[in-house]
Amino acid sequence: MRILILGGDGYLGWPTAMRFSSRGHEVSVVDNFSRRRWHTENSTNSLTPIRSPDERIEAWREVSGSEIQLFVGSMEDAPFLDGVVAETLPEAIVHYAEQPSAPYSMKSREAAVETQYTNVIGTLNLLFSIRDRVPDCHLVKLGTMGEYGTPNIDIEEGFIEIEHKGRRDVLPFPKQPGSLYHLSKVHDSHNIQFACRVWGLRSTDLNQGVVYGIETDESASDERLVTRFDYDEYFGTVLNRFCVQAVIGHPLTVYGEGGQTRGFLNIRDTLQCVELAVGNPPGLGEYRVFNQFTEQFSVAELAELVKGTAAELGHEVEIRSFPNPRIEAERHYYNAQNTKLRDLGLQPHHLGEELVRSMLRTIERYSNRVIERAILPRTRWKPGELEGELSDAPSPGAG
Amino acid sequence: MRILILGGDGYLGWPTAMRFSSRGHEVSVVDNFSRRRWHTENSTNSLTPIRSPDERIEAWREVSGSEIQLFVGSMEDAPFLDGVVAETLPEAIVHYAEQPSAPYSMKSREAAVETQYTNVIGTLNLLFSIRDRVPDCHLVKLGTMGEYGTPNIDIEEGFIEIEHKGRRDVLPFPKQPGSLYHLSKVHDSHNIQFACRVWGLRSTDLNQGVVYGIETDESASDERLVTRFDYDEYFGTVLNRFCVQAVIGHPLTVYGEGGQTRGFLNIRDTLQCVELAVGNPPGLGEYRVFNQFTEQFSVAELAELVKGTAAELGHEVEIRSFPNPRIEAERHYYNAQNTKLRDLGLQPHHLGEELVRSMLRTIERYSNRVIERAILPRTRWKPGELEGELSDAPSPGAG
Repeated sequence: MRILILGGDGYLGWPTAMRFSSRGHEVSVVDNFSRRRWHTENSTNSLTPIRSPDERIEAWREVSGSEIQLFVGSMEDAPFLDGVVAETLPEAIVHYAEQPSAPYSMKSREAAVETQYTNVIGTLNLLFSIRDRVPDCHLVKLGTMGEYGTPNIDIEEGFIEIEHKGRRDVLPFPKQPGSLYHLSKVHDSHNIQFACRVWGLRSTDLNQGVVYGIETDESASDERLVTRFDYDEYFGTVLNRFCVQAVIGHPLTVYGEGGQTRGFLNIRDTLQCVELAVGNPPGLGEYRVFNQFTEQFSVAELAELVKGTAAELGHEVEIRSFPNPRIEAERHYYNAQNTKLRDLGLQPHHLGEELVRSMLRTIERYSNRVIERAILPRTRWKPGELEGELSDAPSPGAG
Repeated sequence: MRILILGGDGYLGWPTAMRFSSRGHEVSVVDNFSRRRWHTENSTNSLTPIRSPDERIEAWREVSGSEIQLFVGSMEDAPFLDGVVAETLPEAIVHYAEQPSAPYSMKSREAAVETQYTNVIGTLNLLFSIRDRVPDCHLVKLGTMGEYGTPNIDIEEGFIEIEHKGRRDVLPFPKQPGSLYHLSKVHDSHNIQFACRVWGLRSTDLNQGVVYGIETDESASDERLVTRFDYDEYFGTVLNRFCVQAVIGHPLTVYGEGGQTRGFLNIRDTLQCVELAVGNPPGLGEYRVFNQFTEQFSVAELAELVKGTAAELGHEVEIRSFPNPRIEAERHYYNAQNTKLRDLGLQPHHLGEELVRSMLRTIERYSNRVIERAILPRTRWKPGELEGELSDAPSPGAG
């Protein structure tokens, strides 16, 4: 199958590209290297030493004997994107190419506008190219569980049947997301659903939980194939950050009581889910949503798990509570459905001490690369509040 | 009160500016004249001969003795917008400054991107300026009833109480809009609700129906104060277009059976509603939605009303049915709530022969200005279908 991976240089995009390539698909990737650029601008970096795009692709050719074709450019650049789609004629597109950080989107007007522009306009350009070039193509779009917020009812997979005043309809699940980044994904979801309904396109929107982990089968096969592992305030996610903090002796920082509950999954399960989506496409005109996570945890539970596992490896870890700079409930109802991917055959990797131990060991290997300054948070959800006071508390949330 | 009208040169913006000015408020307006520019580019025009911005403002000064201050620029230009907000320090902002046409948003990728960029990024810029400059200011935002689409349940005002698996919550009403323009308004609504929830701003989102009519008290007081009246494919709305068609002897063109039902209101009631919203602000942190229409009609009912009234004035009118270029249901359930504005005191002007007669008479006065070419439609909701075949069928829908 001809598969185009948008954002194919990223934490998930690169392993996804290798996975499909290893299965014998014809894989092309698009990236504008915005993550690498952002790290350079901020003098931060991936914990893992990732190779240049060309070195990676060359290493993959050596290891697998397969080619991955690279296109360098941005989805906001419509003629570029349209040219790539016209040249590669993909049967499936996996779209990771968005600004993925909630705290980044909240740091300034400029960052908020950049986030919504990049994400919404990029995806809108893509929808037109699919319509005009490859109308049968299956768009697999990465959304986020954060689109839903924390409603006081069970979160369904994209749609909910509502009975109201004696009538019924199945309607999009109401969204109350918690950041301007999450809002950009909600806007995308509405635009994509429209394109399916009105233009007859087909799409799977993967509302992904918080991803943790470093290794996949392919990335483990050669050191040059390792994927990036971010732990900074903007692009790190909670479990990955806790593990880095544990290894370098920094307290695990939870906001308030750490009662914030979210859905999580292993990076290996991200690949499984994307493969299942691509392998089981919806019909033309269909827009479907899968909630892509395997387990729910509170932040406090994750902190305890990391603390306990790290202790066995000789790391003494403190859990420290800080006032929450985000506007979010610390105690709330949270119960999200996630049966559709399991019905397609997903075999979850569950989170436990063994996985955390293996993450801690990998981090130990690269611990001399940790830039401690990058762990400190700078973004307030509501400006003017608590300035300075929290300079020590990294964000536990997910991008 | 200091009131800033964004889009203050428009069909509704200019009458709104005069209304608040006539009440003794300190009124400033912002406009980038995009509508005038668009007409120039397409060699079309308002039916009514509107004056230059400066002439209008000078005429209003003569007639009322009051000043309206004009700022020329775009909301996408953040430094410009922020400067206006900082200089005028508004206590209320009425925001009409968006690309308002559904067919325009569907005509090409460029027009779609322009629509979502102008509307979503412009409003996002505004939210930051309110947060940073005038956090107590009341944002009155013009949304559209088209955000809801045509669900099979009653449409509530912005929010709906959902009971699901034994639990309850009040959540945003699910949206399934019918064009990329309507989607931009849905994106705005989500962003504004977030700004209220997280930053503590206050806003009224007026989900407006299709507006008809020409005259308001202020615009009728001097010919130089007349507001624009568009009847072209992109910016005309159904009843206004039917009236123009009737006067020039063009068939009233309905799509299919004309069963498409929507909410409508008189331009005079738009002004009443905006005044009621401004005069009764929500509390800080509150985001409220009013469904702003007074009556529901199907397109076929409006065509019959115009045909009957025009006949009395000696215009013989034919109603002609065409295949629908839009993707929308022609028979559907439609029942929308609209009690909140009536509870605040709205006294609706109901649509009847008298109003249509007065519109027809005004149009007769300007009938030599009608550009017949502008009535013909060019936009297909779904490209490639029916090309050419419909070259005769103007769009009956609302922007």
